[in-house]
Amino acid sequence: MPVKLQTPLIIVNFKAYSEATGKRAVELAKKAEKASRETQISICVAPQFTDIAAVAKETEIPVFAQHIDPIVPGSHTGHVLADAVKEAGAVGTLINHSERQLRLWEIDAAIRIAKEKGLISVVCANNQTISAAVAALKPDIVAVEPPELIGTGIPVSKAKPEVVTATVKLVREINPKVIILCGAGISHGEDVAAALRLGTQGVLVASAVVKAKDPYRVLREFAEKCKV
Amino acid sequence: MPVKLQTPLIIVNFKAYSEATGKRAVELAKKAEKASRETQISICVAPQFTDIAAVAKETEIPVFAQHIDPIVPGSHTGHVLADAVKEAGAVGTLINHSERQLRLWEIDAAIRIAKEKGLISVVCANNQTISAAVAALKPDIVAVEPPELIGTGIPVSKAKPEVVTATVKLVREINPKVIILCGAGISHGEDVAAALRLGTQGVLVASAVVKAKDPYRVLREFAEKCKV
Amino acid sequence: MPVKLQTPLIIVNFKAYSEATGKRAVELAKKAEKASRETQISICVAPQFTDIAAVAKETEIPVFAQHIDPIVPGSHTGHVLADAVKEAGAVGTLINHSERQLRLWEIDAAIRIAKEKGLISVVCANNQTISAAVAALKPDIVAVEPPELIGTGIPVSKAKPEVVTATVKLVREINPKVIILCGAGISHGEDVAAALRLGTQGVLVASAVVKAKDPYRVLREFAEKCKV
Amino acid sequence: MPVKLQTPLIIVNFKAYSEATGKRAVELAKKAEKASRETQISICVAPQFTDIAAVAKETEIPVFAQHIDPIVPGSHTGHVLADAVKEAGAVGTLINHSERQLRLWEIDAAIRIAKEKGLISVVCANNQTISAAVAALKPDIVAVEPPELIGTGIPVSKAKPEVVTATVKLVREINPKVIILCGAGISHGEDVAAALRLGTQGVLVASAVVKAKDPYRVLREFAEKCKV
Repeated sequence: MPVKLQTPLIIVNFKAYSEATGKRAVELAKKAEKASRETQISICVAPQFTDIAAVAKETEIPVFAQHIDPIVPGSHTGHVLADAVKEAGAVGTLINHSERQLRLWEIDAAIRIAKEKGLISVVCANNQTISAAVAALKPDIVAVEPPELIGTGIPVSKAKPEVVTATVKLVREINPKVIILCGAGISHGEDVAAALRLGTQGVLVASAVVKAKDPYRVLREFAEKCKV
Repeated sequence: MPVKLQTPLIIVNFKAYSEATGKRAVELAKKAEKASRETQISICVAPQFTDIAAVAKETEIPVFAQHIDPIVPGSHTGHVLADAVKEAGAVGTLINHSERQLRLWEIDAAIRIAKEKGLISVVCANNQTISAAVAALKPDIVAVEPPELIGTGIPVSKAKPEVVTATVKLVREINPKVIILCGAGISHGEDVAAALRLGTQGVLVASAVVKAKDPYRVLREFAEKCKV
Repeated sequence: MPVKLQTPLIIVNFKAYSEATGKRAVELAKKAEKASRETQISICVAPQFTDIAAVAKETEIPVFAQHIDPIVPGSHTGHVLADAVKEAGAVGTLINHSERQLRLWEIDAAIRIAKEKGLISVVCANNQTISAAVAALKPDIVAVEPPELIGTGIPVSKAKPEVVTATVKLVREINPKVIILCGAGISHGEDVAAALRLGTQGVLVASAVVKAKDPYRVLREFAEKCKV
Repeated sequence: MPVKLQTPLIIVNFKAYSEATGKRAVELAKKAEKASRETQISICVAPQFTDIAAVAKETEIPVFAQHIDPIVPGSHTGHVLADAVKEAGAVGTLINHSERQLRLWEIDAAIRIAKEKGLISVVCANNQTISAAVAALKPDIVAVEPPELIGTGIPVSKAKPEVVTATVKLVREINPKVIILCGAGISHGEDVAAALRLGTQGVLVASAVVKAKDPYRVLREFAEKCKV
């Protein structure tokens, strides 16, 4: 892992939201940067591919791609090359988000390629069993996100705390070093605190920040709750 | 079609080649721009998603995405949003390249979305029958490319001229307005001339330009052959 | 088309319903056969792959596969080979059902393979534009089915008659010979009658028959309405 | 696992080979049954979906599907339902064969569904890392098969013995109970013996048997080598 990530950690997935596309991606990243600087808590952002370069240039916040394809440079059209997101300024990438799920071999290959290129790999998993399988592939970070809770505002740390605790237990047995995040439905500071209490080292969030009236305020609250 | 494309037309697909990633994408686009300006022949480029913004900013050449997903803004991770490539500066997009083939409904939806957003749609097709089917979906441009010739240096206009003439015939019966390009194996100026003689209005090229020692010289030659 | 299909035509898709799996597939096919024999209207069935052989052996009703893969015999695991469904007794196959949508090249290849093997190809399409594209690929039958109506009991012939009439018009311009069916939400005899009035030559049905208390009675009613 | 499988174990994947389609699938299964009976070594067969019922009816050899979809009964067209392959007579199923690779969540879901339905799950993996990940999903059997060796006649047990030994080591750490097979390139009795010596409990084979002049003789030899 070339960039040393400090935990606890908050990753904000910009998805394909209008509120986080183009210029607004840069603006949102600046708010995240401000919240991170003021709280001294690590906040990272994952904008769309087309916005990686501008966000990386205009902020100092760590930038993640939302996906990479398991390819090396060559004759591939419409694919996302690890080298390209790195040159654009990304320090890592999400892999296998529940909205972009990959074949098992693709996850394995993408993690290897990320490692070779010095990109931090954050592999998403729908449940504790899949989290354990992912841990065996040795990514830098596993993020457990029950897809049925994504975008609901019902936090996994409250609705399915047993998924989080089982993930922590199973993943730790297989891979003691990997960083564990949880996501889906995280909306309030208390959800972040609960996630940490359950044994994770941070959260993966999206709509609660991106679609907030005041994303800065939400992120400050999330970050404050990481301090305790 | 918001940007009026003049024919004959040359589109250079940068694919995921190292020679056309990051800074080198901008440099290559500048060479294409020079060849276009000097010959007064339309040359467009299709860089990777992460390079669209820089190429659009640093050149005046029309920029295409290599792919868009059939989505509207919202909860999609790792997808390519038409709005995002447009805001980054693209004027159009490839769809269904043989290295990124889509389900039929996705092609239909992507063409519609491109139209709504004012992006020129260039839909690729492997053979004449598929070209006819694509023409029925009313994209702006159909590009026929037999995948078995891609990257071979054996030009479709020489190896399979009947595919090109059949495409022109079948497509014209269904859709008299669509622009028809051909691609795969185009390596020399004479291949471009042959493509035009067979009834197309231009070519889709990649490795012959991107991996050339002197891409500018190759593109000048291609463009000169479009003049006749 | 080796088996001459008489129109009007009713195809019953058994899907993966419990009510039409294994022994119950054969029982249901026998009811369809009875309704067909008594009304002298063509009724065909599309059971699951595992049930094709038994249905073909124990009835004389024309049997369709629900899908074939665009492959020839060889090193393919877990795929559906045209030769295999034919040897099991199928006379044709659905292709590109909205629940099993294919890449455009796969549809083209599957139609070709079906033709070579003497299987009737029934290609599904979500709307009129896609129907026109499909018609250009020259299958034996196009079946238009707006996916948002499938399983709703709201018949396309009532909810979206303009989709059906536009399909008939666009398809006929491209391919005057292809048989046109419509599907989605067909629940009552009057829906079948409406489909024929709108210019189609039959219907593709599923839940209204498979999940009916008395599938025979439903099919008789559908078939009677085809006679007028 | 409802059917108790005895190890060592040989599974013959019939793929989509002409030599193992329709009637010839039954004939081949009978040869496998004969070799199994005479040697008292477990031999199982995995014919195409359309042939499962006939093979299960006409032999007593354990029959596997080549794939199941992660679905329960309902509105799915062209899918392979666990209930359907079971009712047709299968006792288990391959999952994630390198020629039919699945998304990670699909593998997890397919294993669960197989378990609920009492089907033995044989999950294929391309390498040792993926084998370890698969082991965490708790299937009944893991089969490691480097895809680059499939069909080559170059046995994994000779060309890449370290993949096999690493798989055994990594899988055992995560899941001490799972049965481990290896495959790809297994052509001679000595390859089978080597596979067992390297710590596996059997082999997954295909072309060496299916395309042999005398499949019975080949399987006898394989089975004899399992006895030592």
